[in-house]
Amino acid sequence: MTAPSFSYPVLRMKPKANARAIRRGFPWVFSNELVLDRRAKALAPGSIAILEDAEHTPLALVGVNPASKIAARVLDRDTNATIDRDWLEARLAKALSLRQRLYDAPFYRLVHAEADGLPGLILDRFGDTVVVQPNAFWADTLIEEIADALMAVTGVANVLKNAGGRGRHLEGLDDLDVTLRGEAPDAPMTVEMNGARYMADLTGGQKTGLFFDQRPNQAFAQRLAQGARVLDVFSHVGGFALAALAGGARSALAVDGSAPALALARNGAEAMGAAERFDTREGDAFETLQALGQEAGRFDLVICDPPAFAPAKPALDAGLRAYERVARLSAPLVEEGGYLVLCSCSHAADLSSFQGACLRGIGRAGRRAQLIHTGGAGPDHPLLPQLAESGYLKALFFRL
Amino acid sequence: MTAPSFSYPVLRMKPKANARAIRRGFPWVFSNELVLDRRAKALAPGSIAILEDAEHTPLALVGVNPASKIAARVLDRDTNATIDRDWLEARLAKALSLRQRLYDAPFYRLVHAEADGLPGLILDRFGDTVVVQPNAFWADTLIEEIADALMAVTGVANVLKNAGGRGRHLEGLDDLDVTLRGEAPDAPMTVEMNGARYMADLTGGQKTGLFFDQRPNQAFAQRLAQGARVLDVFSHVGGFALAALAGGARSALAVDGSAPALALARNGAEAMGAAERFDTREGDAFETLQALGQEAGRFDLVICDPPAFAPAKPALDAGLRAYERVARLSAPLVEEGGYLVLCSCSHAADLSSFQGACLRGIGRAGRRAQLIHTGGAGPDHPLLPQLAESGYLKALFFRL
Repeated sequence: MTAPSFSYPVLRMKPKANARAIRRGFPWVFSNELVLDRRAKALAPGSIAILEDAEHTPLALVGVNPASKIAARVLDRDTNATIDRDWLEARLAKALSLRQRLYDAPFYRLVHAEADGLPGLILDRFGDTVVVQPNAFWADTLIEEIADALMAVTGVANVLKNAGGRGRHLEGLDDLDVTLRGEAPDAPMTVEMNGARYMADLTGGQKTGLFFDQRPNQAFAQRLAQGARVLDVFSHVGGFALAALAGGARSALAVDGSAPALALARNGAEAMGAAERFDTREGDAFETLQALGQEAGRFDLVICDPPAFAPAKPALDAGLRAYERVARLSAPLVEEGGYLVLCSCSHAADLSSFQGACLRGIGRAGRRAQLIHTGGAGPDHPLLPQLAESGYLKALFFRL
Repeated sequence: MTAPSFSYPVLRMKPKANARAIRRGFPWVFSNELVLDRRAKALAPGSIAILEDAEHTPLALVGVNPASKIAARVLDRDTNATIDRDWLEARLAKALSLRQRLYDAPFYRLVHAEADGLPGLILDRFGDTVVVQPNAFWADTLIEEIADALMAVTGVANVLKNAGGRGRHLEGLDDLDVTLRGEAPDAPMTVEMNGARYMADLTGGQKTGLFFDQRPNQAFAQRLAQGARVLDVFSHVGGFALAALAGGARSALAVDGSAPALALARNGAEAMGAAERFDTREGDAFETLQALGQEAGRFDLVICDPPAFAPAKPALDAGLRAYERVARLSAPLVEEGGYLVLCSCSHAADLSSFQGACLRGIGRAGRRAQLIHTGGAGPDHPLLPQLAESGYLKALFFRL
């Protein structure tokens, strides 16, 4: 249990720090904005404190990690609140009510960190199992309370901790996965989305998992898929390919570098009774795109959903060149009048630079495009508008 | 009939004009970029010409209007093409195939101007009736060929010319509506979208029409509407309100300044058997929002879809202040945990400035928001990526 709020220690911002941003809703305080005197430095990572501006006006309750660049994360603007199980249950209940309104079945991102008022905390729900990623120290510290609150609010039976997030390393947290409550599933789980069946390996040796964020874009691609020959590059477990098959695609070819991911994709196609319309090709995506171009293969719908080529600013230029290359190599594979879907999950590449890279690539392939749809992550991945970084996913639907 | 291409006159760009932009896909040539010698000035508005760069290299076939700021619009990059009925049919067939893939019923924007390769030409299809807006001189000149091509490609019976577009004035075109083929409907037409029934008055005294562009945003709002008390401000014929009723809203109140539009909204609600859950309030939207605030009215879902407050750059500042005011007045009407949908159809206000205005307004109302979805116009309103202006519609879905 956490102590009542009146006893929370105080953490003060420097006079030149941007307290106004905090007042406006920005959720992070960087370490160079804080008065890190001996007392502040002595705060245990993960402890809760009252953040004050330089004039001693209380701003918010924060979760503290003096060792991280993000030294404090705003938990509550009510400095009289107590960060305990009731508080956690209230936040989880609010997050749950949005998802219950949006989805018929309990498969979704239940908590999307800052945007759901639970900074650094990611919860993905797969029926009666929730995978927790506590990527901030305060959440890792309160992980038992979070697990209890989660079971109380949602009624789930199994709570698994996934400690593989990149953020944990920056916070100085371990990478040990734990079964917090109930049991870890001993086989891949079937997840239905957009009428397709996906195999999600939540805990197996490969831990390929499943991403919910592309659901609306997979649904949109499905509307273009009836009777189409579909190519899904960087397919992972078949996110777009299986959605296209469920939408009546004539054939779907999934390309990925991971054999276990392709095996799960095949299992999904089998579970859908669509195995004979489905094929896979294991290998480097760029090489495979080039090889398909030399084979003069043509598709009615091509989707490229690569990993983040520009995860952070220093990688931006190289990342944009990689996106341009994906566009240049994939556009020739699209039939005249067909569709090309290009995705980016890079924080650093904003929509306009990503679109520019795609257009350059399409242009260099000698093709012209109209843009029929621009999609983002699904609404179970809300954004905190003050935190531009949270809008990472972009899917551009071109007709060539 | 149009003459074969070899006889098209030549129009030349000035040495300093941006021929590279045209090569990259930009569709407009401004009058100050053209060598407007006596011969060029003698070209009849609406005639077809071969555009060349300053080095006499042919770039494209263009529709010419020496009197307009947009003096030439790119029709085809193949300068050997002939702009005749076959050419029109090919463009229309390509546009139609996208819409047929996307929609089960023939109610959609069939041609969205530049993005569909038919610059300045708008076609909205309502079953067997098409409303044509030829907002560029070349299209107005070829209107009979367009009507014939349209009937041949789509099989529609009625083609109506709507000359009310703002663009026509800039082109120096008249504002006379004409029934080009078949008959004009003598009563409002019923249009089904998202399970709702809308009344579209295509030719009546008020000519309220119906907009297809908000269809996906109305569908998304519908997902939030089950059991909700809904307020639809600037409702027009009930676009969001009726979609919400079809989605199981407990009640919907439509506010608009136009009595005929509200009457059509009521007719729609009656046709849906939802009249007892529907109410209207005629009046100024700002005054009505203030009045509802004083009545302490609360809603679970509030949508504000105002007219373009910032249609062009000079109106941008005033427009953003108006959007902020809409947000400030509407946010207090939203229940805690409820949803606020704020829309802009202003070309000049880009997504980021519009979002900023909304957040300032919500903040000044003392509320905080998460952004769960950002929507644009539906895919029957494709964009030409080189023409940023075509991305005019923005719908932000906030949870407060």
